[in-house]
Amino acid sequence: MLMVAVCVALVGCLQAQELQGHVSIILLGATGDLAKKYLWQGLFQLYVDEVGKDHSFSFHGAALTAPKQGQELMAKALESLSCPKDMEPSHCMELKDQFLRLSQYRQLKTVEDYETLAKDIEAQVKEEGLRETGRIFYFSVPPFAYVDIARNINSSCRPGPGSWLRVVFEKPFGHDHLSAQQLATELGSFFQEEEMYRVDHYLGKQAVAQILPFRDQNRKALDSLWNRHHVERVEVIMKETVDAEGRISFYEEYGVIRDILQNHLTEILTLVAMELPHDVSSSAAVLQHKLQAFRALRGLHRGSAVLGQYQAYSAQARRELQRPESFHSLTPTFAGVLVHIDNLRWEGVPFILMSGKALDERVGYVRILFKNRAFCVHREGHWAPEQSQCLPRQIIFHIGHGELGHPAILVSRNLFRPSVPAHGWMELQERPGLQVFGRPLSDFYAYSPVKERDAYSILLSHIFHCRKESFITTENLLASWVFWTPLLDSLAHEVPRLYPGGAETGHLLDLEFNGGHLTFSQQQPEQLVPGPGSAPKPSDFRVLGTRYRESPLISAWPEELISKLASDIEATAVQAVRRFGKFHLALSGGSSPIALFQQLAMGHYSFPWAHTHLWLVDERCVPLSDPDSNFQGLQSHLLQHIRVPYYNIHPMPVHLHQRLCAEEDQGAQTYAGEISALVANSSFDLVLLGMGTDGHTASLFPQSPTGLDGEQLVVLTQSPSRPYQRMSLSLPLINRAKKVAVLVMGRTKREITMLVSRVGHEPKKWPISGVLPSSGQLVWYMDYEAFLG
Amino acid sequence: MLMVAVCVALVGCLQAQELQGHVSIILLGATGDLAKKYLWQGLFQLYVDEVGKDHSFSFHGAALTAPKQGQELMAKALESLSCPKDMEPSHCMELKDQFLRLSQYRQLKTVEDYETLAKDIEAQVKEEGLRETGRIFYFSVPPFAYVDIARNINSSCRPGPGSWLRVVFEKPFGHDHLSAQQLATELGSFFQEEEMYRVDHYLGKQAVAQILPFRDQNRKALDSLWNRHHVERVEVIMKETVDAEGRISFYEEYGVIRDILQNHLTEILTLVAMELPHDVSSSAAVLQHKLQAFRALRGLHRGSAVLGQYQAYSAQARRELQRPESFHSLTPTFAGVLVHIDNLRWEGVPFILMSGKALDERVGYVRILFKNRAFCVHREGHWAPEQSQCLPRQIIFHIGHGELGHPAILVSRNLFRPSVPAHGWMELQERPGLQVFGRPLSDFYAYSPVKERDAYSILLSHIFHCRKESFITTENLLASWVFWTPLLDSLAHEVPRLYPGGAETGHLLDLEFNGGHLTFSQQQPEQLVPGPGSAPKPSDFRVLGTRYRESPLISAWPEELISKLASDIEATAVQAVRRFGKFHLALSGGSSPIALFQQLAMGHYSFPWAHTHLWLVDERCVPLSDPDSNFQGLQSHLLQHIRVPYYNIHPMPVHLHQRLCAEEDQGAQTYAGEISALVANSSFDLVLLGMGTDGHTASLFPQSPTGLDGEQLVVLTQSPSRPYQRMSLSLPLINRAKKVAVLVMGRTKREITMLVSRVGHEPKKWPISGVLPSSGQLVWYMDYEAFLG
Repeated sequence: MLMVAVCVALVGCLQAQELQGHVSIILLGATGDLAKKYLWQGLFQLYVDEVGKDHSFSFHGAALTAPKQGQELMAKALESLSCPKDMEPSHCMELKDQFLRLSQYRQLKTVEDYETLAKDIEAQVKEEGLRETGRIFYFSVPPFAYVDIARNINSSCRPGPGSWLRVVFEKPFGHDHLSAQQLATELGSFFQEEEMYRVDHYLGKQAVAQILPFRDQNRKALDSLWNRHHVERVEVIMKETVDAEGRISFYEEYGVIRDILQNHLTEILTLVAMELPHDVSSSAAVLQHKLQAFRALRGLHRGSAVLGQYQAYSAQARRELQRPESFHSLTPTFAGVLVHIDNLRWEGVPFILMSGKALDERVGYVRILFKNRAFCVHREGHWAPEQSQCLPRQIIFHIGHGELGHPAILVSRNLFRPSVPAHGWMELQERPGLQVFGRPLSDFYAYSPVKERDAYSILLSHIFHCRKESFITTENLLASWVFWTPLLDSLAHEVPRLYPGGAETGHLLDLEFNGGHLTFSQQQPEQLVPGPGSAPKPSDFRVLGTRYRESPLISAWPEELISKLASDIEATAVQAVRRFGKFHLALSGGSSPIALFQQLAMGHYSFPWAHTHLWLVDERCVPLSDPDSNFQGLQSHLLQHIRVPYYNIHPMPVHLHQRLCAEEDQGAQTYAGEISALVANSSFDLVLLGMGTDGHTASLFPQSPTGLDGEQLVVLTQSPSRPYQRMSLSLPLINRAKKVAVLVMGRTKREITMLVSRVGHEPKKWPISGVLPSSGQLVWYMDYEAFLG
Repeated sequence: MLMVAVCVALVGCLQAQELQGHVSIILLGATGDLAKKYLWQGLFQLYVDEVGKDHSFSFHGAALTAPKQGQELMAKALESLSCPKDMEPSHCMELKDQFLRLSQYRQLKTVEDYETLAKDIEAQVKEEGLRETGRIFYFSVPPFAYVDIARNINSSCRPGPGSWLRVVFEKPFGHDHLSAQQLATELGSFFQEEEMYRVDHYLGKQAVAQILPFRDQNRKALDSLWNRHHVERVEVIMKETVDAEGRISFYEEYGVIRDILQNHLTEILTLVAMELPHDVSSSAAVLQHKLQAFRALRGLHRGSAVLGQYQAYSAQARRELQRPESFHSLTPTFAGVLVHIDNLRWEGVPFILMSGKALDERVGYVRILFKNRAFCVHREGHWAPEQSQCLPRQIIFHIGHGELGHPAILVSRNLFRPSVPAHGWMELQERPGLQVFGRPLSDFYAYSPVKERDAYSILLSHIFHCRKESFITTENLLASWVFWTPLLDSLAHEVPRLYPGGAETGHLLDLEFNGGHLTFSQQQPEQLVPGPGSAPKPSDFRVLGTRYRESPLISAWPEELISKLASDIEATAVQAVRRFGKFHLALSGGSSPIALFQQLAMGHYSFPWAHTHLWLVDERCVPLSDPDSNFQGLQSHLLQHIRVPYYNIHPMPVHLHQRLCAEEDQGAQTYAGEISALVANSSFDLVLLGMGTDGHTASLFPQSPTGLDGEQLVVLTQSPSRPYQRMSLSLPLINRAKKVAVLVMGRTKREITMLVSRVGHEPKKWPISGVLPSSGQLVWYMDYEAFLG
């Protein structure tokens, strides 16, 4: 689809560029803020750049305002057009006069208005004796107006065959995946993909626009560096000093993630992360590789982000939105997000996206920090920036502002001397005393644009020249929303941390990442204004010891409980290995043990894994690598973090001869045989069980015809829920264990916990009640929610 | 054994300490350098500390020198004894007089001399009316004299029952594992383990001695930090400014690794790396945990180290050793070594050991640098040392010298406020302008000893108080040599990089580590003086490409060959994963692939293991965990270093129903079924084969009735050598592979290589000749010895 669309567009571009003709540019919202601030200036720049080449132009400022009044407003906006610095003033004045003559205001409200516009353009083209090249409609209007305008353009204002139509949109492009998709579908009913240009003006920023060309021109040097083996981290940062005052009615609906991260920072991220196309000037290839990068992004979860809100925000919101004193907004004005990319190039490299308002400085950059794998023998004071591999090694695309004050590309001198475009960029002059990113400017090869250009003038030129790689395609947009929407949903009710703003914020917003989690470095301080949530926290309680069904019970909050269970298992393991040289541990599947697996994997460095045999208590009849498999849970949460010899791992043979749990494959008997052969007396050192809400344990369900008694050590059973077929250790085998631990967690277990506390030995009804090691020890581990409700 | 020995020693200690008695200390080599510089002073300090407590003392300075002359020399040495700074001078003078009266010189040369000494001690004890507590013999003599002296002490100078004997040795304790073992065996024939105190005087340095107590006192804070998740690297460094001039006859035999790394730096390494015993004051526990740490050290290889030699060394050596102008020494005066520890706590954390002479400063330290996982929102200039997690986080045990000038413990303020011993250590005063480890001193919680004490006086006190944890046990010593000897052997002919010395060395010796390899950051510069060793080295040869049996042949020296094969396999893997999402690799057993496995495990971090399926080409009919099993080789040399999901590993099912390769268990059919099910068209992406001297390949031997043709994919075969029963992929299956690599190495393969080059397709006679992938590629990898003889 994409490929086809882009090809069509390219053909359109070539045709258009080849022939002389007339181009009409219609600026919708011609008297609005964006138009006044950037767009008219950008159009003037386009005219300056293109006048006298192949095309004639007409510029139509349009709005809903009546002609006379609109005309006046527009004239005011045009008055302040400034001349390019490098142009002779008199020549510029001449061009400006021409530009003003070519620009006229028109009210565009009704279908007839659009029809008139079309007729006027046709007449003018005829008059000029040219053919019509194309029309650009720039939507500088609120999104709710898009659809009406689009319908009118499509029905009444399309240029004739052989001429192109280009429509340009400004964000926001929706509020989440669904709304973005709706908007895209609506616009798609009026325009073809190649006709639409969605602006992310960051793609017009000079440093951002250089990311791909820089990667291309320095392909050789970067080839070995631009990957997880060498990159320590990537930071994509946009800090603002201004706050949201005056824009709260917009901001309150969007917040910083939708305003900055979902679009600007994500675009930059993909430019850094994407595989470099062979030809970076091919829009099609760039867009395709971008989409590939999106597909490799690891899904975000609540722990991927932290949110903040500057302290004055809620008061501003009450004022601007006329809300009562009791109103507190949850809209974040600050966000840090940790992104991981699951491909071979970037696996494990943290990408930190951060943006916020009311911070201590205004600056935007993307910084690639390389790993320090050097040890410098020479004393630190004598390290030379070109030579010492111990000094930081970084590449920075400095978007603007900050201490540097302008766009720049910085490459640490101990990396390599980069190639930059021969034209348009120059080496930066040394500025003594200036420190950037922890080092004096002289530590970098530093380049900046010869001429600083506004993003909009660049993008208008790209629209005119049909350079689609600087714009957001529908696929690109939706991919971004697919990535961000789950996070936004999960954060919808998150209370942002309040920060005073400016320099006073101090270290309050500093971030730390660990594994897939991002947190504030500092513990939540006393809320500056009373926040919600002062309920007691787990750490306020101690582990509680008592008895349950006449066996020891250990009860605590989940974290302490898991931690206690893990320590108990390690102690049992150490003792078993000391006495017998090995430790036979049988583990249950399900969700509760996952936290335990993680705890064992991350916190128990002296666990005697090399001498531990791992067995399964039960298994679902699916292939071992199936996400439903208990073994798969063990693999991903425990095995892949530790080193257990292959032959000490004993998955249940549920998958033999390409069949699942076929009686005739005798998997249960095979497993029983393996146990008998390796585990002395078939008595496990420790069996970890769970308890279901129906009183099942292992995969022994109420009324099971097998496994509750008898001789069999391992049995096939039926579960009431999918996947129905199971393999399980039998109760008689479980009860031969030296130690049995039953882990019960969560509020949903409350009822069965109550019930089972009162019943006797009735394994047919409640299999868990049949757990009673004949000469071993039984211990219950229950969290407070399961035990106290 | 160890446990028993230490218990005996402890009992001995208790007995000795409890009762009043006489202690004799015999300093052998009483007029030598070490004695003059440290040992007499240490003995005086011991006397000062212990006088008036439970024991009386006599000090015997001994040497080979005749009594009168020796007496004079010793008197000279004793003249310069200095008083502790915190002691009243007149009191000290009194003690010094006493000490001199208790010290006498005696010639110890013959058996009779030792007998006389024994008698004199007994007489003195009798005279004092005490019992004898024990005797300390301090061997401050060259190692070649050890055995004679030891024999004399053992035969003629042991104290009576109920009194202890302690003998103290100074390094070198051998030159490699063999010589150290010989020396240990010899000494062991005269002394019991608990009687021997091997001095590594670094263990008496105050900062080193604090490593374990610090870890113990800060257990809680360090618990979560002291592991691979948080530690970025550990540096164990000893830099000297002096060179070896005047000591070349010693130095030329040892070099920097034996002089500094094998002992001092290794001891420090183990103190940092070992699991912390519950009771750090238990010598037995400390020693046991140290040995555990040794066992976890990953073996060193040539690529683990870099060597240097200061430029003037060879000239000094010619002068001191009276060698001709043509003599160039290969003895390293500088070494950097990268150590990895293969346990869960330290896996992947680089430990960098470095020492050198003629460097730019004198300093010794161990530095634990923690990972930076923070992003600080606030501008860098405003980071507060206590709060900002973006500033470096490090713990340094500063042994001495350097900018700081004395022993210290430094803990970055953004880590935690450490506990240090209430007595003996004090917080350091701020020293404005002083930068240590890249930061002002004020960034650290910094502590130094109230009283700086010499290592020898501390160690003499420990010997007296029977604190064995500060000394090197035989097991400890041999473990260290086991670790270092293979590296020393492999470096025996390595040409060290020449460096000018002092500040001029610049970045010449800067190190970089990558995977398991350590290299100089800078390319080898032009040799500063003509270096030795201009014989061609393996790396001077290029990998040779030609053809063998009409297929491509790659030939090189073993190291390059393995390296090339590993890269080729990785390239094939990456391509397969890119195209098909997985990579099916079938590996042969035997000895040749071991080097390949190691290379793949250590040097190929971007190998797509998570998507690789590992199959066996052949297997011996033994249990998988049997040392003879091909799978066991794979497990220990490859699997335990990488992370392949369990279900991607496919050992051959040679052990079913507790039987080995029984026809009726259908193991071969099962394996064939597994291959058919998982490998598209049963066509492996790569099969790695070897070639036997009889022309066999896989486990397909000449005249085999199975496997050389026919339909079967996997077959049972018979080997002419033990274990006779085998399972093997068949030739038809091998020939379905997309790529087959045959690795042939070693001189023993020369004949068959010649022969097979000339034969046609005769798989019955030479199974290897039947290897010819039907639509895949065959590549031969042969080392020069196999190919050129």
